[in-house]
Amino acid sequence: MSKQEQTSKLWGGRFAEATDSFVQRFTASVSFDQRMALEDIRGSLAHAGMLAAVGVLSAKELQQIQQGLAQIEGEIADGSFTWSVELEDVHMNIEARLTELIGITGKKLHTGRSRNDQVATDIRLYLRGACDAIAAELTRLQTGVVGLAAAHSETVMPGFTHLQTAQPVAFGHHLLAWNEMLERDYSRLLDCRARMNRSPLGAAALAGTTYPIDRAHTASALGFDAPTENSLDSVSDRDFAIEFCAFAALLMTHLSRMSEELVIWTSAQFNFVELPDRFCTGSSIMPQKKNPDVPELVRGKVGRVNGHLVSLLTLMKSQPLAYNKDNQEDKEPLFDTVDTVLDSLRAFADMVPAIRPRIEVMREAARRGFSTATDLADYLVRKGLPFRDAHEVVGKAVAHGVESGKDLAEMDLATLRGFHPDIGEDVYEVLTLEGSIAARDHLGGTAPRQVVAAAERAAQRLAARAH
Amino acid sequence: MSKQEQTSKLWGGRFAEATDSFVQRFTASVSFDQRMALEDIRGSLAHAGMLAAVGVLSAKELQQIQQGLAQIEGEIADGSFTWSVELEDVHMNIEARLTELIGITGKKLHTGRSRNDQVATDIRLYLRGACDAIAAELTRLQTGVVGLAAAHSETVMPGFTHLQTAQPVAFGHHLLAWNEMLERDYSRLLDCRARMNRSPLGAAALAGTTYPIDRAHTASALGFDAPTENSLDSVSDRDFAIEFCAFAALLMTHLSRMSEELVIWTSAQFNFVELPDRFCTGSSIMPQKKNPDVPELVRGKVGRVNGHLVSLLTLMKSQPLAYNKDNQEDKEPLFDTVDTVLDSLRAFADMVPAIRPRIEVMREAARRGFSTATDLADYLVRKGLPFRDAHEVVGKAVAHGVESGKDLAEMDLATLRGFHPDIGEDVYEVLTLEGSIAARDHLGGTAPRQVVAAAERAAQRLAARAH
Amino acid sequence: MSKQEQTSKLWGGRFAEATDSFVQRFTASVSFDQRMALEDIRGSLAHAGMLAAVGVLSAKELQQIQQGLAQIEGEIADGSFTWSVELEDVHMNIEARLTELIGITGKKLHTGRSRNDQVATDIRLYLRGACDAIAAELTRLQTGVVGLAAAHSETVMPGFTHLQTAQPVAFGHHLLAWNEMLERDYSRLLDCRARMNRSPLGAAALAGTTYPIDRAHTASALGFDAPTENSLDSVSDRDFAIEFCAFAALLMTHLSRMSEELVIWTSAQFNFVELPDRFCTGSSIMPQKKNPDVPELVRGKVGRVNGHLVSLLTLMKSQPLAYNKDNQEDKEPLFDTVDTVLDSLRAFADMVPAIRPRIEVMREAARRGFSTATDLADYLVRKGLPFRDAHEVVGKAVAHGVESGKDLAEMDLATLRGFHPDIGEDVYEVLTLEGSIAARDHLGGTAPRQVVAAAERAAQRLAARAH
Amino acid sequence: MSKQEQTSKLWGGRFAEATDSFVQRFTASVSFDQRMALEDIRGSLAHAGMLAAVGVLSAKELQQIQQGLAQIEGEIADGSFTWSVELEDVHMNIEARLTELIGITGKKLHTGRSRNDQVATDIRLYLRGACDAIAAELTRLQTGVVGLAAAHSETVMPGFTHLQTAQPVAFGHHLLAWNEMLERDYSRLLDCRARMNRSPLGAAALAGTTYPIDRAHTASALGFDAPTENSLDSVSDRDFAIEFCAFAALLMTHLSRMSEELVIWTSAQFNFVELPDRFCTGSSIMPQKKNPDVPELVRGKVGRVNGHLVSLLTLMKSQPLAYNKDNQEDKEPLFDTVDTVLDSLRAFADMVPAIRPRIEVMREAARRGFSTATDLADYLVRKGLPFRDAHEVVGKAVAHGVESGKDLAEMDLATLRGFHPDIGEDVYEVLTLEGSIAARDHLGGTAPRQVVAAAERAAQRLAARAH
Repeated sequence: MSKQEQTSKLWGGRFAEATDSFVQRFTASVSFDQRMALEDIRGSLAHAGMLAAVGVLSAKELQQIQQGLAQIEGEIADGSFTWSVELEDVHMNIEARLTELIGITGKKLHTGRSRNDQVATDIRLYLRGACDAIAAELTRLQTGVVGLAAAHSETVMPGFTHLQTAQPVAFGHHLLAWNEMLERDYSRLLDCRARMNRSPLGAAALAGTTYPIDRAHTASALGFDAPTENSLDSVSDRDFAIEFCAFAALLMTHLSRMSEELVIWTSAQFNFVELPDRFCTGSSIMPQKKNPDVPELVRGKVGRVNGHLVSLLTLMKSQPLAYNKDNQEDKEPLFDTVDTVLDSLRAFADMVPAIRPRIEVMREAARRGFSTATDLADYLVRKGLPFRDAHEVVGKAVAHGVESGKDLAEMDLATLRGFHPDIGEDVYEVLTLEGSIAARDHLGGTAPRQVVAAAERAAQRLAARAH
Repeated sequence: MSKQEQTSKLWGGRFAEATDSFVQRFTASVSFDQRMALEDIRGSLAHAGMLAAVGVLSAKELQQIQQGLAQIEGEIADGSFTWSVELEDVHMNIEARLTELIGITGKKLHTGRSRNDQVATDIRLYLRGACDAIAAELTRLQTGVVGLAAAHSETVMPGFTHLQTAQPVAFGHHLLAWNEMLERDYSRLLDCRARMNRSPLGAAALAGTTYPIDRAHTASALGFDAPTENSLDSVSDRDFAIEFCAFAALLMTHLSRMSEELVIWTSAQFNFVELPDRFCTGSSIMPQKKNPDVPELVRGKVGRVNGHLVSLLTLMKSQPLAYNKDNQEDKEPLFDTVDTVLDSLRAFADMVPAIRPRIEVMREAARRGFSTATDLADYLVRKGLPFRDAHEVVGKAVAHGVESGKDLAEMDLATLRGFHPDIGEDVYEVLTLEGSIAARDHLGGTAPRQVVAAAERAAQRLAARAH
Repeated sequence: MSKQEQTSKLWGGRFAEATDSFVQRFTASVSFDQRMALEDIRGSLAHAGMLAAVGVLSAKELQQIQQGLAQIEGEIADGSFTWSVELEDVHMNIEARLTELIGITGKKLHTGRSRNDQVATDIRLYLRGACDAIAAELTRLQTGVVGLAAAHSETVMPGFTHLQTAQPVAFGHHLLAWNEMLERDYSRLLDCRARMNRSPLGAAALAGTTYPIDRAHTASALGFDAPTENSLDSVSDRDFAIEFCAFAALLMTHLSRMSEELVIWTSAQFNFVELPDRFCTGSSIMPQKKNPDVPELVRGKVGRVNGHLVSLLTLMKSQPLAYNKDNQEDKEPLFDTVDTVLDSLRAFADMVPAIRPRIEVMREAARRGFSTATDLADYLVRKGLPFRDAHEVVGKAVAHGVESGKDLAEMDLATLRGFHPDIGEDVYEVLTLEGSIAARDHLGGTAPRQVVAAAERAAQRLAARAH
Repeated sequence: MSKQEQTSKLWGGRFAEATDSFVQRFTASVSFDQRMALEDIRGSLAHAGMLAAVGVLSAKELQQIQQGLAQIEGEIADGSFTWSVELEDVHMNIEARLTELIGITGKKLHTGRSRNDQVATDIRLYLRGACDAIAAELTRLQTGVVGLAAAHSETVMPGFTHLQTAQPVAFGHHLLAWNEMLERDYSRLLDCRARMNRSPLGAAALAGTTYPIDRAHTASALGFDAPTENSLDSVSDRDFAIEFCAFAALLMTHLSRMSEELVIWTSAQFNFVELPDRFCTGSSIMPQKKNPDVPELVRGKVGRVNGHLVSLLTLMKSQPLAYNKDNQEDKEPLFDTVDTVLDSLRAFADMVPAIRPRIEVMREAARRGFSTATDLADYLVRKGLPFRDAHEVVGKAVAHGVESGKDLAEMDLATLRGFHPDIGEDVYEVLTLEGSIAARDHLGGTAPRQVVAAAERAAQRLAARAH
């Protein structure tokens, strides 16, 4: 009996002609869903164990199935397993091989379940594992970010708004902003994982099954928190995959922002940081080039993940219950999202600790550009001016500085007093970079002692994670 | 002094020419951000209270500010407040009016804060309120769904996969699938709300402030769980808004699926349910039309919300820290998402309890279409056949039925035995609709007693919610 | 010399350490861009030919290069070519092999070009070929649609708005609506192809080259309409790829609409058409199922293509000129879009001619549902009533019909005259389906003679296409 | 008779209860579709004219309608027209007012048409007008870009790849790259306009009409190229709106790229260009700030337009024919896209001619950063080295330069000869910026005479446009 005939045996009684061979390839999923082979086997083992526990399978049948599946797992691991497009998907491929190996008992494995709840189970097991791997890599990246931040609580750089010099900040403070974004991503990931960790096994095709199954048994065996509540919902929704992709889109958006900063900072004009050669590549035509490939590529990859999110949302839009073939399209975007996130996190986790800030360049950039203008305004407020008036006075001093090419700290006292008579000798203290950053000394501010404390709190949160 | 001159006073010292008038309109946000006026006032009251508590404002100044803001709130409420594009945004409009009302003290309100942390605070207060309103409406909808489900635990309809008749299910079971989707949406909403409920106030422009502010004080006064950890992050990220839109996109996707079902079910061909006239409209040209406008429109509105999600993701892609003008574009998509979700939920919450199932039509549809074919296969398994073989036998019986125009229950025993000799008189019990649904009697299955129990659990979860 | 060392030879002089091995894999593109190998060779042959024509290469060097590239093309064709991740991309892999084969002359091929203009050329050649293949498949599909339409100019079905019965239409008329959508898609495809068919070769890295190249020569050799106008633009924009994906998203949207109709029409409740078994699959658990997999899957695939469009738009958002590494991410979405469109068109082109309408079922559905109500209103207008009043009269007749279970044509004259005294014996003519469709006899209307004429015009347009 | 009752008169005969008042507001479109009021009147005038021409209306009735519509147009223009939500949409509002003004003849206007073809006509008329306005603004922007380019054919700046200094280019050459992007956008706009310019009027509700209409007459009167071919397609597809949004997304993507460059170029670190104060705004807290608001905001607005494109694609996904209520959602995204594109173009068209390049800063940036390294490699090739070897030699010279802080032109001959003995005195000619850019002297290259010629060609193309 050919593979083709075997397939039609799976659902063929009602059919008068075989599937068109192009249609067979077009509708088959085995080329990509074989990625869930181990999850499929895990799910089958749990299902078989439950069937034996409730008396649908004998102990001997269970043992045969376990041995057969163990052999198949080995064949997949060593590459000797033959995947067949005629057998449509990973489930059919494994079941057909099982029947080949152990005979009629192999066919009994499908009792009380359907490919619909089987694939819903596999994909959750797969995604749960992916979440755990991503959580670990995210923790590694955050650890690198926080470590670099702790080392640079007193390194001064210009803080930007609108990419214009705004106020001096500690480089470590800037890095801790990165960490906060990632911290929320981590939190979203945990929420997503918790929500998806329910077992759909037992929903069967859509309505449940007539066999005396024990859904709590399989849920527990597979590490799910509980069985799902409704069979129709279990086989038809993919919101957990969309929620995961939304998490991933936000994470990649955050990485794209860090990437943009690294690309700008490594330009000749900014020259704020250096990336080691091993994270860069050159040009086949321009001998002088050293390109920040890793951040550029990660920045580009946010497009891929946003796209996958849109794919899945489009896919589910206005699908009637329960399972429709459309849903087969859920896997490739999901798999590629997982790969992209893991690779991007790995690249960043490797690279971040190796970032070398050019401390003097950043300091010089902060010194120029009137970055302490707000401090001068605050100084005048302390002398009794309303803030809005102080702002106006300093604005005029800056306009003069732009024309004369002098920063505020470079103007002599007479010049400064020309803008307001309350300015005294003590003004130069607030115009220094150290004075400026030290003065922002409250929770969340850039004062070095705040940065040190924030980095410590961050490190403790990371240490408390359960990986 | 004209409004135009007032504006330039806000940041004008450094500028040599006034803003171009088209540019002023193009860059102003007051036309849409005035929607956050009450949140802006709440934030200002909390900020002023804190400034007084730490000694930056006197008790009298605080009182002046409170009175001024109270008057402004009244003016906004009664429509007498004059919004000015020259004053750019809601913050400047309110502050300028306050100064008009109480003089120089009004200018002091801006001490120790910036529009950057001010808008970040306003938008979170606004969105938190929106989350609460949405949660209440979602609960109302779910209550309607669960109520209708409880009333139809024994109403039989065909369950579909691929929009082909699959197996009989209880109409109440189908509705509980809707409820499960909405239950996860509710859970996502709560997670989103909890994550965003941190106070950015005190981050100032980007680096914190030199004033002795007490961020815990304002956080507490505004009902936030805590202040945020990092000033740069506080003013620059909008991930909470994106997470909200991702929640909304999933919710609307779920509503689009329910809508699609209602549209199909109200077609003349299905005729499964009737919607009251008050939720439908007619045609200006075709006198017989009664169109399911509400579900159609809600189905269409998923596009709007998906689009807003993409807008915000695109907006944030590769933005360097901290605040950039791009971020002004975050509000309109967010506001429209809130409106769309609230309106759609309201329409569904009103409509769902008024859905009238045509019980006999659904039952007849389930009776035909070989919906109990799986039951026959299960019957044969109980007689000792492997499932795959039973499937093949039944497939042939169905093929015969398609040709002869007879459902399985309509074939006589001799005919059925022609497909397999183990079929006996007792087969007709499993071929009934009641037998079929009652047999799926496990957690999540469609058996009426399971549907009743599931509806009760759902109702209890809803009752336990804190609205 | 190892492959790794070879690579670093390509741009290594300036580098102090080798690329990290994970980074090498992460940043390499050869796993997917090898798909453009033949285009790369074609481009190299044209470039070499031009270099010889302007005297940069000798005739003998040109011959060596031609022979070397011919051999490589053979190796790729027979699978013996060894692709190396260390060599980054398709360009480097082929060039390295060429140098291996013909020595130092191989290195000269890169004179006057860069990978930046090389890849821009390859991708346009690839996409131009894809456009031609898609155009052919689209024509095949349209031919099938128009053929089926021509055969059913008198087959009556209910036309729907809001999925409610609206007015009778010819099945052929409905199919010609499909053809109109596809006709516009075809037209968009041609526009896209024409706009992209300009040669970027000679833009070099970004600024042009110091060699005396002849860009018109290579443009002509490669079948481009002309060289591009600006070197920076040539290597940095990918708008042609985005335009292609926008075309594809619209085409797939159209296919999703046809798919939705086929899914609805093949439901047991509608039962309007039958799809041959070879385009359907069954269920592993429900023996009676025959699922319309092909339209469902195509409907799902619109998500994939919409997602790719969003990917590319996100990718290009706010990229500064000229080439950035982000752009490497342009290929996979583009390739997958091409594959998806080609496969979906092929599936539809095969399937559409095999659609079997159930003529009697469609006719009966049209007969019921008051589909000729508008004709009755028009009848009354001809008797002198304003349309709005006639509409009101017919609305009441329909309401009566809904209650009494009778269609308009089933009511006796007395009953009808009860709604308006001007109704006479001749009313029954306008209430027939044939009368109704024949009466809409103008360009674009559903009258059979209009459908026949429209199908003929459509067929002539298809015949005039240059494939 | 109240408005409410009037509405129900429009389609009420079949209905037993009035529309729910919230549902009425929820499903009404008049709040946004009144924007198409003038198009609606134009369409009605053309329809009435045709009805008179074919004898359905008398000359006197036509005149009444014309006078009534003229009065309504006046009322709308002067703001005295009362829009009513109860009357649902712009069409019903105008028709009800017409009937109020001229009595029963007003009702006759609707003969032979439906709101379905009416709105399809209105939206095309509206969008065609928008296309023309956008085309004019795009031409104005391109004229500014090309003018600035022509003035800077010899202004040298560093060309970037990966935001790293690559090779010197003329500033005018860079600007012409902008123009090429916009040129393709213009071309796409024309294609889109041409494809949509077909008249759907006469499609009626979906199937055509029984009245003896002349569709060519109305098409011609409204400036359409021809009537559409199929009535079902005419009322149900919105691909022209999606194609327009895809054009807009590409245009905004291009503007986002220019914006990104302007933001980077106006940073203190790059300082390449200055924007006049009138296109910038300041900070309420930092007195020194001058922020490039216009480019930042335009960069942000690409999100809005990408989102609208996704909205419309999602909206149309898997909609069955013909018109569904979902389609009402097509207007707001479309209108907002038009507004955004027009405003963004206007802002850029005003701003671009006022950009002031800092010629010396750009030149100095090009001088540093080894931007002529490729020229040195090319020099060595002319001395007989294969390019790859020359690349290696120069790479080593650059590595030495990075260490010693000297650009290539700053090294003495002995040092340079240390890297390769073939380097001679003449090397300094190729290391100058002028030499480097002048040497790229072919179509599309950055040589000043090529830039001058390209700017002239561009100006001629702009002059030839028909505005």
